Amino acid sequence: MSIRIGILGYGNLGRGVECAIKQNKDMELVAVFTRRNPENVSILTKTAAVCHVDNVADWKDKIDVMILCGGSATDLPKQTPEYAKLFNVVDSFDTHAKIPEHFANVDASAKEAGKVGIISVGWDPGMFSLNRMYANAILPEGKDYTFWGKGVSQGHSDAIRRIEGVKNAKQYTIPVESALEVVRKGENPELTTREKHTRECFVVLEEGADAAKVENEIKTMPNYFADYDTTVHFISEDELLANHSGIPHGGFVIRSGKTGWNSENSHLIEYSLKLDSNPEFTSSVIVAYARAAYRLSKEGQTGCKTVFDIAPAYLSEKDGAELRATML
Amino acid sequence: MSIRIGILGYGNLGRGVECAIKQNKDMELVAVFTRRNPENVSILTKTAAVCHVDNVADWKDKIDVMILCGGSATDLPKQTPEYAKLFNVVDSFDTHAKIPEHFANVDASAKEAGKVGIISVGWDPGMFSLNRMYANAILPEGKDYTFWGKGVSQGHSDAIRRIEGVKNAKQYTIPVESALEVVRKGENPELTTREKHTRECFVVLEEGADAAKVENEIKTMPNYFADYDTTVHFISEDELLANHSGIPHGGFVIRSGKTGWNSENSHLIEYSLKLDSNPEFTSSVIVAYARAAYRLSKEGQTGCKTVFDIAPAYLSEKDGAELRATML
Repeated sequence: MSIRIGILGYGNLGRGVECAIKQNKDMELVAVFTRRNPENVSILTKTAAVCHVDNVADWKDKIDVMILCGGSATDLPKQTPEYAKLFNVVDSFDTHAKIPEHFANVDASAKEAGKVGIISVGWDPGMFSLNRMYANAILPEGKDYTFWGKGVSQGHSDAIRRIEGVKNAKQYTIPVESALEVVRKGENPELTTREKHTRECFVVLEEGADAAKVENEIKTMPNYFADYDTTVHFISEDELLANHSGIPHGGFVIRSGKTGWNSENSHLIEYSLKLDSNPEFTSSVIVAYARAAYRLSKEGQTGCKTVFDIAPAYLSEKDGAELRATML
Repeated sequence: MSIRIGILGYGNLGRGVECAIKQNKDMELVAVFTRRNPENVSILTKTAAVCHVDNVADWKDKIDVMILCGGSATDLPKQTPEYAKLFNVVDSFDTHAKIPEHFANVDASAKEAGKVGIISVGWDPGMFSLNRMYANAILPEGKDYTFWGKGVSQGHSDAIRRIEGVKNAKQYTIPVESALEVVRKGENPELTTREKHTRECFVVLEEGADAAKVENEIKTMPNYFADYDTTVHFISEDELLANHSGIPHGGFVIRSGKTGWNSENSHLIEYSLKLDSNPEFTSSVIVAYARAAYRLSKEGQTGCKTVFDIAPAYLSEKDGAELRATML
């Protein structure tokens, strides 16, 4: 019998999860839950239901794992603890600073309900975290570097769109190649924010807007742009749609460390991602961890878990013997 | 109390393990076991004993994890199942094709003794296997590539040394940069052995040996060199010692895959290692898994495990809360 999956929230991430389920033969999408009128939500999977989120409790025994595809700012802090009372859940909560609090909330409610909740699944947090952790355990003497990009930052694009006179905008975060190279040489540099990433903005102006004023507002925006070398390009809406409608992303996690009785040998561990679609890749990671949630729950485990707590084999459709024979 | 470690076999790997233990504050090397006369074996750790392997059973209750540093050809197939009767053990068994058999033997003897045995720990098998497995679970539709090098292949160097007229030799395996680039572009090429790696040999001849004959013997050697583009350099013994006495290695694990309802988006996951010292890095991985063996045993688990079966958090000196706060 396949693992019965529910999706709660049908935006970019929800659609990505739907696509990822299609690639995993041991899983089945049974229902999508939405806050909108279900009649107005059209999904790709012919065999799955579209339901209003108010009716989610009716599905308690018909769904093995509910994948929560809401946002980290306001949705997930409430939703994950709430739905962990009814289902095994997986989320992609990505507000790094609030993970301990979120973990505690999900843990309490999942334990009480006898469910498994896996939080902060994706690539950062997620695969990048795993690679930081493995590399730190292997090379205790060393230094970590994370670079993001080249990719679209949704938050930064939104910040530009809020400026008066801006009709539309897309922002790319770009790692500085020379900084990457210094890190790869094992020189363990101390890098400032400005030295690690640049920001490139493609902006469509409202008619009659003052380009110089907009550019200045972007470049001096605290937190978002002021600490970076930022380039602003003004383009037409057609050009934005034609060349900048994708959601690519990626990045690099590097640990540079030493071994030897006198720390005489250098080592470099590098993990990198180059992604055409940030939400689809995130979804693919989430779906692999949904399999783990199902299996852990079958074993009788309960409570909140992160990628650190889950043995890799739980993610794979293959069993232990097959994994050892083909991938070890 | 620290985790008490024993080392069985004191070659390059054993010395590497000794160095790695020094970097891990929660561990202590208590004894090194050797087949040689212990009086002739000098180790770096002042506080540890050097003992003959015949007396290893005396240490049954004084060592938490025994790290087996023998070779995969003849030592480990016997040693790991044997010593798993007395100790929690970790080995770096790397004969990929024989892993299922080795696993079964270690599993039986570890389960009977109530011990944990972790096999095939290092970087390939080991970290490379983990990355293959994670990437396959995340991107079910895709293709895997493993490239090794640039690094010294011990087996190939030995094969050259067995040729008549060769006094000493070192062989480097080198990934073909253009093949790597094609893979990184997501073109999913089918690559032959020759297209993926080249082999470079530095050879010191015996006096009066026939260079052309030696070069031909190397280049036509079946399995080892015949399927590769091989370059042979004849150098002096002094030059070999000066420039080729290190044991660097490394490599790349890449998975190129597709997502999307119609597989319209491409993704690339790449993991790479650049290692000054192959045995010291392998040792560092082993020591992290020794921590896991200790913890799993404390929890009452028994039997044989591989890197696939062990949750990442078991490798880290940090506890769950600290990991979540600092690395997730």
